Amino acid sequence: MLLHELETPAVLIDLDVMERNLGRMAEYTARTGVALRPHIKTHKIPALAQRQIALGAIGIAAAKPTEAEVMSEAGIRDIMLAYPIVAAAKADRLARLAEHTRISVSLDSHEAADCVARSFHAAGRNVDLLVEIDVGFARCGVQSAAAAAELALHIAKLPGATFGGIMFYPGHMMVPPAEQEPLLREVNTRVEAAYTAITASGLPIARVSGGSTPMAYRSQEFSHLTEIRPGMYPLNDRNLVAGGFATLEDCALTVMTTVVSTAVPQRVILDGGSKTFSSDRLLTGDHIGHGVVLADRDATLYGLSEEHGHIDISRSSRSYTIGERLRIVPNHVCATINMHDRVYGIRGDVVECVWDVAARGHVQ
Amino acid sequence: MLLHELETPAVLIDLDVMERNLGRMAEYTARTGVALRPHIKTHKIPALAQRQIALGAIGIAAAKPTEAEVMSEAGIRDIMLAYPIVAAAKADRLARLAEHTRISVSLDSHEAADCVARSFHAAGRNVDLLVEIDVGFARCGVQSAAAAAELALHIAKLPGATFGGIMFYPGHMMVPPAEQEPLLREVNTRVEAAYTAITASGLPIARVSGGSTPMAYRSQEFSHLTEIRPGMYPLNDRNLVAGGFATLEDCALTVMTTVVSTAVPQRVILDGGSKTFSSDRLLTGDHIGHGVVLADRDATLYGLSEEHGHIDISRSSRSYTIGERLRIVPNHVCATINMHDRVYGIRGDVVECVWDVAARGHVQ
Repeated sequence: MLLHELETPAVLIDLDVMERNLGRMAEYTARTGVALRPHIKTHKIPALAQRQIALGAIGIAAAKPTEAEVMSEAGIRDIMLAYPIVAAAKADRLARLAEHTRISVSLDSHEAADCVARSFHAAGRNVDLLVEIDVGFARCGVQSAAAAAELALHIAKLPGATFGGIMFYPGHMMVPPAEQEPLLREVNTRVEAAYTAITASGLPIARVSGGSTPMAYRSQEFSHLTEIRPGMYPLNDRNLVAGGFATLEDCALTVMTTVVSTAVPQRVILDGGSKTFSSDRLLTGDHIGHGVVLADRDATLYGLSEEHGHIDISRSSRSYTIGERLRIVPNHVCATINMHDRVYGIRGDVVECVWDVAARGHVQ
Repeated sequence: MLLHELETPAVLIDLDVMERNLGRMAEYTARTGVALRPHIKTHKIPALAQRQIALGAIGIAAAKPTEAEVMSEAGIRDIMLAYPIVAAAKADRLARLAEHTRISVSLDSHEAADCVARSFHAAGRNVDLLVEIDVGFARCGVQSAAAAAELALHIAKLPGATFGGIMFYPGHMMVPPAEQEPLLREVNTRVEAAYTAITASGLPIARVSGGSTPMAYRSQEFSHLTEIRPGMYPLNDRNLVAGGFATLEDCALTVMTTVVSTAVPQRVILDGGSKTFSSDRLLTGDHIGHGVVLADRDATLYGLSEEHGHIDISRSSRSYTIGERLRIVPNHVCATINMHDRVYGIRGDVVECVWDVAARGHVQ
């Protein structure tokens, strides 16, 4: 099938660009010895997770037990729930997966640890529980080294559970390089303190799991880090480009749209809006715009209705024609894929494969 | 099934509240004689569309041919595509539906009119084409009365098409009442001018299709209006409440979530983020927050990660417990439902029905 045969809007993944991105991360992690555990929240596509494993990833990370079910079904044998599980029904789902799949869970409370361990113990299984520490993002994570050691010791005594190490998420580090330095020092201070307190209590620390796409290529600067969980690196997006973490040429995913109206002066309307791109904003700079119009850098995709993309062409000299197609690099690739049931793998004008976004909608 | 048996996050629709909202609109439109053609973009659920028809709606509006296919399959026999169709594949889909379903399309260009008429003519069918006029929203729509008449005459000559009337969308009127008045005068000026120009050219105007939920109960103040296309009125949301168009008690849809972390001081983390609520912002006031925490009006759902809702409880005296459930009224009900494959109809603590969001993901 050829690109022009697809109806729009359609999510396209340039397979050559994606392979280059995958290869770069595989090479970096192999060279530096940090284990790669990609977070599948970005793509939710079993075939992509399998490709990541084939290129050396030790397993995957997921946020939801139902996502883990899809990936386990696809043959992924090591899945970390990088999310506190506090409901018995969810823990029971994970315990069932443990028949075929090594499961670990990160969490920050006795309640979560007790909940998950109880289900695994009842199922006659064992789960690795990692203590999440807050390294400055202020979302989840225990607040002190003493609290980390206390929770680690609590986990170590639970039937059905093994203390699996330390987990953190540096979600606040998607900032310019000069601003990263003090944040990195604070992350390392907190990780080292927790590491020291836990080892002082007599527990070995098998894993220190951190990472994110923006920080992935600085992994060797993080104290004690053994694995990273980047999600976006195979595809990239406008936010990563705006932050200096990727170039437009690294963006494997574009949304192909069609111009449906040029009736309003200085405006062009596309057949994709917030239900195609998501409403996720640009995280840096002026926060303006919802994507890059590849054919016209003077055009601004300034607004989204649910099914309309509003482009301002007042600074552009390009002419636009109803029915023509425009490819857009979206602000946030994870949120965009999550809007779609399928995506198309392309090379040039050829559609080489169609992938179901199989774990999309698995909100529980 | 009882509410506590559902895993979270789960989208709940309070059936009593929804029925009250449906009944109010049915009563208003019956009393004033304006035809009701609900836009199904809000819910994308066939059973809800059928309920709207049962209560007197003359048909529905949709944005995408694939949405229309789902609704036609469910027995809806009058569907308006309130969206310019400019691709032959999409027009062909609509022409196929015309075997069982009356189809109309609004558009603002010769290209769109020619495209749709060509498919219907080839299929031996006829389509009603409405001319969209821009009444101030500056999204789609011809810009002058002369252009409206010119396009209407063009349509009237196309094999496969009948000129069906005027369509407009007052999407810019979700503002405080005092600001609505000049906008309403401008809308009426433009509609009257187009109406006069088209009738002067000898064409009858069968329909004038306008409306939206915020303006629905002022329909009788719009010139020449024969039908309205509100979407959100059965459910409502935080944006409509903030704009003064509904009360919290009118909000039939809530998202049930679970507290998964309380580790960070003054913060509570929920198991729903932008992939549960959408990233749609509050359209009025300070634009802050992603929903109303019904159990605690002093709490602010100030931020969303993809799977985490971040609540600020620094001004609250309520205590929070890991594992407890909180119900949230989201900013934008259409965008929230669009994140989910199913929703639950409830009365009190009883789950009375489960509805598939059958037209979700039908982006083309």
